[in-house]
This record gives sequence, C-alpha cells and structure tokens, in this order.
Amino acid sequence: MNTAAAFADYRRYPLISALTAVQTLADQVRVSWADGRVSPFHHPWLRDNCPCPQCVYTVTREQVLEIVDVPEDLAPAAARIDDTGCLCIDWQDGHASRFDPGWLRAHAYDDASRAERQAGKPKSRLWDSSLELPVFDYAELKADPQALLQWLLALRDIGLTQVRGVPTEPGSLAEVAKLIAFIRQTNFGVLFNVQSKADADSNAYTAFNLPLHTDLPTRELQPGLQFLHCLVNEAKGGESLFVDGFAIAEALRREDPAAFQALSEIPVEFRNKDRHSDYRCLAPVIALDGLGQVSEVRMANFLRGPFDAPMAQMPVLYRAYRRFIAMTREARFQVQRRLNPGELWCFDNRRTLHARHAFDPASGARHFQGCYIDRDELLSRILVLQR
Amino acid sequence: MNTAAAFADYRRYPLISALTAVQTLADQVRVSWADGRVSPFHHPWLRDNCPCPQCVYTVTREQVLEIVDVPEDLAPAAARIDDTGCLCIDWQDGHASRFDPGWLRAHAYDDASRAERQAGKPKSRLWDSSLELPVFDYAELKADPQALLQWLLALRDIGLTQVRGVPTEPGSLAEVAKLIAFIRQTNFGVLFNVQSKADADSNAYTAFNLPLHTDLPTRELQPGLQFLHCLVNEAKGGESLFVDGFAIAEALRREDPAAFQALSEIPVEFRNKDRHSDYRCLAPVIALDGLGQVSEVRMANFLRGPFDAPMAQMPVLYRAYRRFIAMTREARFQVQRRLNPGELWCFDNRRTLHARHAFDPASGARHFQGCYIDRDELLSRILVLQR
Repeated sequence: MNTAAAFADYRRYPLISALTAVQTLADQVRVSWADGRVSPFHHPWLRDNCPCPQCVYTVTREQVLEIVDVPEDLAPAAARIDDTGCLCIDWQDGHASRFDPGWLRAHAYDDASRAERQAGKPKSRLWDSSLELPVFDYAELKADPQALLQWLLALRDIGLTQVRGVPTEPGSLAEVAKLIAFIRQTNFGVLFNVQSKADADSNAYTAFNLPLHTDLPTRELQPGLQFLHCLVNEAKGGESLFVDGFAIAEALRREDPAAFQALSEIPVEFRNKDRHSDYRCLAPVIALDGLGQVSEVRMANFLRGPFDAPMAQMPVLYRAYRRFIAMTREARFQVQRRLNPGELWCFDNRRTLHARHAFDPASGARHFQGCYIDRDELLSRILVLQR
Repeated sequence: MNTAAAFADYRRYPLISALTAVQTLADQVRVSWADGRVSPFHHPWLRDNCPCPQCVYTVTREQVLEIVDVPEDLAPAAARIDDTGCLCIDWQDGHASRFDPGWLRAHAYDDASRAERQAGKPKSRLWDSSLELPVFDYAELKADPQALLQWLLALRDIGLTQVRGVPTEPGSLAEVAKLIAFIRQTNFGVLFNVQSKADADSNAYTAFNLPLHTDLPTRELQPGLQFLHCLVNEAKGGESLFVDGFAIAEALRREDPAAFQALSEIPVEFRNKDRHSDYRCLAPVIALDGLGQVSEVRMANFLRGPFDAPMAQMPVLYRAYRRFIAMTREARFQVQRRLNPGELWCFDNRRTLHARHAFDPASGARHFQGCYIDRDELLSRILVLQR
C-alpha cells in the first residue's frame, strides 16, 4: 500500500485498478485505468486535494491549505505516473502533488465512478407485519465487535431491533447505550422513566393508549435511536406496537400520490410545552432526500399544533393526514409484542413509529426506562467498527 | 379571558377582535370579526382542534382525539356565537366544541391572518465590521430575567454576543450555559478545553491559525450556540475573528447569483475522524428555508472532504467556494477582538463563522473552555421567558 494518501483518514483505499495513462488538458487532467475507465479531474480539484504535509497537518489529518490561497488558473507544468503507480503533478508555481491510485479511484467523479458509489450506499430494507424481528443478545454484543456491528447494521437498515439479557437494575440502559455512544440529553433527562404519573408532562407518562408516533417531532432533529428498556411489566396491557414509517410512506406514494405529495411538502407544526419549556418545530410529516427517497417520518398526533396552511391546501392536507394515520392502523403494517423484563427495544425513531396499548396501573407495576442516541453517532460507530 | 382554550398551551390569546357573525357552508364555517376580517375554517380543522376535555387530556394538554376517529364528512348541525363571544359548534354526531375567539383569531388561516403572522416572525439583523458588539454582564443575566431575555434575543437575531464578569475557574462555563439549558455533548465532551496539544485530534487544539468556520459541520445538526470562555490568555496572538455568514451569503446572492446557487444546491461532504469516531455529513454550504431565506451556513474548510459532484458542476462549485472563502477574508465583514480572562463569546454557530489567529504557545499560557447548546433550547427558553 502506497503511503501517499496515508494522511487521508482511517479508511483503506485498495488498488482497484492501476493507472495506465495521464493526459493534461486546459482545465483538467484525464487519467486512464487498466480496466478501461477514464476519470477526468479538474485542476483545482487536484490542487485542493494535495495530501502533502504542507497542505495537510499530519497530526490531525486536517487541511491547512485553502484553495483560495493558490491562483484560480493554477495548472500543472507536468503530470506523470511514477514507478510506484502514483499520479504525480508538478504545478506551475513549483508545488508538487502525489496521489495514491487507490485513493484517487475511490474519489473519482466521472459518471461511472459516481454511479458505482451511489449503488454501493446502504439501502433501507422495508418491512411489514411479516418482519422476522432482529433479536440480539446483550452478552454477545458486549463480547463480540462483529455481533455489535450486526446489531448496528440492523438498526441502520431495518430500524427495529430487540436486545435480550439486559440486567433489570434501573440505569442498566446507560451501559447498553455506551456500546454505541453517549446519550442525547433532552428536557426529559438523560435516562427517562416511562411510568404512569399523576402530574404527567407528556401522555407517555400516563397509562393511556399512545397512538403510533415518533418521539420529539417537536425538535428540529428528532432523536435518531430510541431505547425502551423493560425493568418491570406486571400490568395488564401496555403491549408495544411498531410500523415501518418508510414502508407506509412508500405505500402511500403508490396508492395515493397526491396525499404523499401533500405530506412531503406542507409543513406541520409539532409542539411540546410545560412549565419550563416550549418547543416548536415546523416540518413536513415525510422528509425526502436529494434523490426523492423518503429519509424521515415525523409524526405524533398528540404533539401536533393546528394546521396552518393556505385555504386551498387545507382539504388535501386533512385528507392526506387522515390517510396516513389510517394506514398506521392497518394490520398489514403492524408488529406487536409484549416486552418482558430484561428486554429492550432499540429502533430508528426517525423511521419506525411506535405505540403502546393502554395498560391498567392497578393490575401491577410497569416500569420502562428510555434514552436517545443521534443517528450521527450510530453511523460513526458503524464506520469505526468496519475499519 | 375565556377558559375555553385554557388547555391549549401556556400562551395567552388576547381578544384582538370580537366575533360578529358565523355562516356554515358545505365544507367550512366562515366567521366574521368586528374589524371586518373574514376567516373560513374547514369542518375537519374545527373538529380536530376541539379543546374539550374529551378531545384533549387536561393534565398534559395533549390531544387524545385523532381526526381519523370521526367520519371524513362530519359537519356541524349548528354553529353560533355564544354570550361569552365564543364560537360554538354542535356536530352532527352529537359532539360539541367551543372556541375562544382570541385563540381562534391567533390560528385563523385566511390569507390576511397568515400574512400577519408571517410578518410578525423574528428576523435576522445582518451585520458587518461596523457591528456594535452586544455585550452583557454575567451578574445581571443571573439576577434579571429581562436582561437574560435581551441576551437570548441578541443571540437569536444578531448571532454574536459577549458576556463579561464570568469567573475564571475551570468549569464556570457550565453555570453560564445553565441559564439557557443543558449542554449538548459531543465526542469532544461536555465542556471542551481549547488548548494547544501535542496529540491534537482537531486543528482547534493546535496553536495554528484557524480560518473562518462553523463548528461540527460534520454533524447533521450543527450545534446552535457555541460558547468560548477565556480563562487565561497570556500568549501572543490568538485574537478572535467573526463574520456574519448570513450577511456574506446575502452579499454573494447579490454579487454573484450563480455562485450563491451552487453553494445552496450542491452538497459538500464534511468529515471528522479520529481513532474512535468517523463523522460525515453531506449538505450544501448555504441552507435555505421554505421561503428561500438563508437559514444556515455550514463551513469548515479543514473538515471538508473532496468535492464529489457531476463533471459539469465541478468548475462552478470551485468558483463559488473560492468566492465564498475570499469574502470571509474581506475586512468589510470582519469583527476582530481579543478575549480577556472572565469574558466569553456566545454566538450562533449555524450563522456566525469564527476564526482564531495563530498564537505563540511559548509566549504565555492560553486556556479557553467551550460548549454547545442547540437552537431548539434557545428558542424554547425565549418563549418561556416571554410568557
């Protein structure tokens, strides 16, 4: 492995194909690869990505050069492939850059290379009531980084998992969360207790039925992962219910495109307030990424404010919103389980809607603890485990 | 004040204008106000927002009804204004709703009412090198909720403030942050120490010049507020520099619309990695809200990955990116100050770019502490203080 790009990051860039030719044009350098691909690189791109220790501080691996520090029209004086297979550029101002072919191929932006990278990105696996629930054993997750990685990939791609064999002492959940990252604090605390309370500041802290929802749609960034850990569950009722919000959104897109469009375009306010806080967030129920893929669902009817939309949009918004809630109630989408002490749910709170049947607090004790971790932390942990 | 909407939230809804007439149409109820405005409300909107204790749990003030629980074509059997001035609806299924006129006016969605609300929203006040720096006294902030509110409004609308009179004991910053909310933890910790370190995992922890940047553009949600608290500053150099990223973005929009468009449309990857983490975020440098207003700037050149854009976009992206960085370096935009022990910066990290001149660690000690609080918490605290 060539060391030219050793600075770059903790990733490896294996040699996919060797460089065979290099051609300098007016605004770009065009390289050819042994497998026939041709990748053009614009001059500023190459200068910007020079990995030499003058341009990148080797200790932090962070760039020191800013592209505006060199002339806009800076061009190569010479470009060649050296005897280690690296692309070498001598710049007109005397600077020299050397690029590892593995790194260069991994960052090539010709159409074929970009399409290849896009195709290699992880994809959500949609599910319905037939889901074979991914279940993991806490002892294995602690002992085996590969088991841990499998759990995290299931969280990323399926968005609903169960972990068993967790101690039932209050606070144990913090140790489970640490396997991924630090916990995201909210106004409900670091670990929150889900119990029926007389002075509830959320319907979650009652014995009511809770309809299918995401937690904290009231925040600009909904928590990425939600944990719900069962310590005691002796009360009648209180079963957990889940649906795949992405699957419902995609079904809605197929079955009622106008409703899908309304929910992905018209912003809705979610709000949560108590004596000490007043959170508000205005966003569509369905968020799409740059490619039009469903990237997030935001929904908790009991935290929603009055719709505020132009007159003409209000009927279509109500029709779409009714339809979405009606779909969350359809058996074809629902997974229902009762959680036992020592088990926990961990799920993608920006995708998987969860619900709880009403329970009877007079019939026995019920005590769950919960916490959140953001999606950034999950993805970072996966990348580190995959190194 | 009528109690019909007392459930609604902790806000007050003063009577702006009395209801004078009500008319029921096929799909909506149209009310007239004493000041001449006419506000239509669709039937499902009114049923959905019924504030009665059957529809809303009074303890949590959260809705129990879901609109899908009533028929889609549910219509009023009768609508009238009662002797307290409330709008009363008797529904065809026997349910009755009663709406406070202050609450109703505050949520009316006729064009005039929506335009009025939009006009009343807080607006950013753009600044340049002539900024009269908003400075606050820590003792006053602790003692006087109105002084605290003024500070928070300056953070929201101007995005750059200084607080003086803060103790210089390490950890004091946590007490200042508590005036707003809990601190947002990151992989750099809860309070982080900004000092020159041999094993730096960020250029921030060197003695280098740091160019104008936002912190953690590598996270999906950049921290909203950043605090930098000076404990010791005996080293030569290390002056703080700020620019208003919104002002620069707006200047770019005027001076070079194509560059503005490129930076607001083409996603750029920011990345930060060390032995334990690997964060990546793909997003445009300039984010726009639904109205096309600049809502966020994301920029730290030293954390940026190689551009990955289609061939045709690469030249325009480089031109735009160069232009943006060049503008951050223009004196017309820059505010420069040296922070003294006991002073702190608090600024909107999603708007205000900050920089540090290089300092000479051999010339004396320099110790800053920093932390983050998310924008949600700032806005919530403002709403609570404004009650």
